[in-house]
Amino acid sequence: MTYHPLNNTTLIDYLRSRPALQDRLPWDAPLVVKEIGDGNLNLVFIVEAEADPTRSVIVKQALPYLRVAGDSWPLTRERMRFESQALIKHNELAPGLAPEVYEYDDEMSLVVMEHLREHEVMRKPLVARQRFPLFVDHISTFMANTLFFTSDLYLTGVEKKELQKKFINPHLCKIQEDFVFTNPYMESPENNWNPEIDAEVQVVRRNSPLKLALAEMKASYMTHAQALIHSDLHTGSIMLNERDTRVIDPEFAFYGPMGFDVGALLENLVLNYAAHYAHTPDAAERASYQAYLLDTVRDTWNSFAEKFEALWVANNRGELMPAKYWDYPGGEEAFAEFRRRYIHNLLVDVAGHGGSKMLRRMMGIVSVWDFTSIEDLKQRAVGERLAIRVGTRWLLERHAVNSIDDLIGIVQEESRSVQPA
Amino acid sequence: MTYHPLNNTTLIDYLRSRPALQDRLPWDAPLVVKEIGDGNLNLVFIVEAEADPTRSVIVKQALPYLRVAGDSWPLTRERMRFESQALIKHNELAPGLAPEVYEYDDEMSLVVMEHLREHEVMRKPLVARQRFPLFVDHISTFMANTLFFTSDLYLTGVEKKELQKKFINPHLCKIQEDFVFTNPYMESPENNWNPEIDAEVQVVRRNSPLKLALAEMKASYMTHAQALIHSDLHTGSIMLNERDTRVIDPEFAFYGPMGFDVGALLENLVLNYAAHYAHTPDAAERASYQAYLLDTVRDTWNSFAEKFEALWVANNRGELMPAKYWDYPGGEEAFAEFRRRYIHNLLVDVAGHGGSKMLRRMMGIVSVWDFTSIEDLKQRAVGERLAIRVGTRWLLERHAVNSIDDLIGIVQEESRSVQPA
Repeated sequence: MTYHPLNNTTLIDYLRSRPALQDRLPWDAPLVVKEIGDGNLNLVFIVEAEADPTRSVIVKQALPYLRVAGDSWPLTRERMRFESQALIKHNELAPGLAPEVYEYDDEMSLVVMEHLREHEVMRKPLVARQRFPLFVDHISTFMANTLFFTSDLYLTGVEKKELQKKFINPHLCKIQEDFVFTNPYMESPENNWNPEIDAEVQVVRRNSPLKLALAEMKASYMTHAQALIHSDLHTGSIMLNERDTRVIDPEFAFYGPMGFDVGALLENLVLNYAAHYAHTPDAAERASYQAYLLDTVRDTWNSFAEKFEALWVANNRGELMPAKYWDYPGGEEAFAEFRRRYIHNLLVDVAGHGGSKMLRRMMGIVSVWDFTSIEDLKQRAVGERLAIRVGTRWLLERHAVNSIDDLIGIVQEESRSVQPA
Repeated sequence: MTYHPLNNTTLIDYLRSRPALQDRLPWDAPLVVKEIGDGNLNLVFIVEAEADPTRSVIVKQALPYLRVAGDSWPLTRERMRFESQALIKHNELAPGLAPEVYEYDDEMSLVVMEHLREHEVMRKPLVARQRFPLFVDHISTFMANTLFFTSDLYLTGVEKKELQKKFINPHLCKIQEDFVFTNPYMESPENNWNPEIDAEVQVVRRNSPLKLALAEMKASYMTHAQALIHSDLHTGSIMLNERDTRVIDPEFAFYGPMGFDVGALLENLVLNYAAHYAHTPDAAERASYQAYLLDTVRDTWNSFAEKFEALWVANNRGELMPAKYWDYPGGEEAFAEFRRRYIHNLLVDVAGHGGSKMLRRMMGIVSVWDFTSIEDLKQRAVGERLAIRVGTRWLLERHAVNSIDDLIGIVQEESRSVQPA
C-alpha cells in the first residue's frame, strides 16, 4: 500500500484489512481510537474494544513532516524501520521482554504492537523508591540474549554481516556520537546544565585525560561492531511492573559495543541513586533505597555476565572460536580464559561507556527526569556533583576495574563526602 | 546489458560500444586479444593495438562457473564488485598507486583497467634481492591515504557508514577469518606444512597464550570497523618496478582494522627475510639484503605513521574529534596525545595481525612463493622456524611494543640462533 498517513477514521479499515491482526481485536464490536503522542514525528494511536479495553493495540506511524526540513521524512521513515526491525529481533531473541509486534508495514512506515497497559516507564517508580523483585532477572536475560545471539560468538560471519547490513543506522548513530561523546564537553549551543554546577562542568571540559578517555569511548562506539545493541538502554526505555519488564524504543539499534547497553542501564541506576539526595530527605530511607539500587547494579552485572557465559558455553556455534580450535590438552582452560577476558573487557567498556553517558546527562542536551524533576537547583546540584565525580572516575579508572564491586566502590567512596543541601 | 560471458570475438564490439573507452585503444587499427588467467573464476583478457602494444587494456570478467556448487556465481560476481569498487576508491584516494580503472560494468560483472606492462609482482624480485628505492615512499602513501581518508578521523559518521555498507563483504571476509585466524591452528584437512617443522607446528597448535592472542586478533578483524582496508596487502598484491608501485587485487576490501593491512605488508617482508637463509647462501650478501629488508620494514612503518599523522592534522574533518573539542588551554597537547595513542594502538595491531599472518603462512592452506620456491625441505625449514618464532613473539609481546624497532629487534634476536642448513 502506498504511504498515506492514517487518521481515526481510516485507521480501522486499514487494520481490519491486515490478516495478521484478525485475532487481535473484535472486529464485530465497537472499537475506540485514541490518538496519543505529540504528533511531532510519529502518529501514535491506541485502538481498543469499547466493551473490553484489555483487547487493544498500539499503532505507530511515521509522519512525513513537511513543515520542517526536507531531510526529516527519510529520517523519520528510517527510524520507524530500525525500531520495527529491532523490536522483531528482540521478540525473537528475548521473548516476553519487548512489546510484541503484531504487524510491520514498511511502505506505510507503520508498526502495530502490544499495548502495555499495566506497565510504567521505569524512571518514575525509581524516583518513588519502588522495588522490582524480578527486574534483575528480566533485564539481565534481555541483555545477555540480545547481545550474545547477535555477536560473532553465536552467529556465523556471514549471518552476522547480513544482520549488520540491515542495521547500518548512520543518522541515529550520529545523534549519539554528537550528544553522548562530543558536544557536552565543548561549547555547543544546545548544551544545558544547572548553573550551580558550572564550575564542575568547566573542569570536565578542560580535563585532558578525561577528554582522551571520552574520545577513545567514542572511537569504540563508532568502530566496535560487536553485537546488535539497543543503543539507548536507559531507564526511560524500560516499561515494567512488579511482574513484567519490557524494553522499548530501540530505534537507535546498530552493531556497536555491548558495553554501551550494559553501561547505559547501570549508569542510569547510579543517576537515580544520586538524585535521591534530593528526592528522599530522610537519611535512613534514602540509604536503604540507595543500597537497593547498588545491589541492583551489582546483581544485574553479575547475572548478565553469568547468563552471557552460560549461553556461550551452551551455544558455541559462531566464529569466535569453533570448539575444534580449543580441542587440545589445555584447550578447555584456554577457552575458559578467553571467555573470562572477553567478559572482563565488557566490564571495562561498561565503565567507559557508563561514565561517558553519566557525564553527558549533567552537561549536554538532555538530562534525565530523575534530576529535572528536582526543582531546587541547589538540591539538584548535590547529586549532579556526585554523578560528575563518579562518571569521571569510571572513565579514568576503567582499565583498573576487576569486578563490578570496583565500580560500585567508586560510587560509595564518592558518596561519603556528599552533604545533602 | 544483461550478463553474458565475452570471448575473443564479442569482446572488441563490447569494448568499442563503451564511451569511457573511446580514447583508450585505436579503434580504426587492428587489435590483438589474448586470453590470460586460468579461466577458473574470471576471464582475463589483454587487448592491445597490433601496431603499438603500449596501447593496451586488461579486461576482467567474472564467470558464472556452473561446474561447481551453485553458490560460486554470486560469490564470483560479488568478488568482482568489491574489487572494482575498491580499485576505484584507491585511484581516488591514492592516485597512481593502483591500476587505473577505465570502465566498470556491474551487470556484466566486468572491469576494464590499466595493463601494467612494465611491472612485476613483488615477491619474485625480492627473492632475487632487488631493491626498490621508491617503494617505501609509495606504499606508505598508499596505506596512509587509503586508511586515513576512509576512517572516522576524516569522514563524517554518515559518510563512513554509507561507504561501510557498500563494503559489507561476508564471503571474502570468511576466507580470511578461517584461513588466517582459525584453521591453521587446529586440525583442518586443507592445512599444509613442511614435515620438517612438524614439531614446531604442533607446539603452536597447543600454545594456549598464543591461541588466546590469535582469537583476540580474530575478534579485532571481525569487529573493528576502523577503515576501508585492502585486507590482502601482501607482497603478492603489489606490482612494481624501480619507478612505480601499484597495489592490485583488493577483492577482500571491507571495513576492518588498519593494522591488518600494515601488518600484512611488514610480515611479508619478514617472511622474505627468513626465506633468504635458503635463497642466498653467501652470508655477506644475505646479511646485506636482510638489512635492506629490515630497513624497509622500519622506514615503511615510520613513513606511514608520519604521513598518517600529517594527514590527520591537515584534514581533521571527521568525527574523532572536531577541532572545537580540543579548543581549550591544554587541548592542543591532548589532541597530540590522542594521535600518539591512536598510532601506538595501530602498531600493537600491526604486531598482532602481522604475527597471525606470519604463522598462518607456515601451517595453513597457502604458503608464500618465497618459501614454496625452496625445493630442499631442510633448507626451507630454517626460515620457517624463524618465522614461527618471530610470529609467536610479535603476537605475545604486542602490548609491550613501543616502536617499530621493538618488532625489528625480535627478528634480529631470533636470527642470532639461526643456522643455515
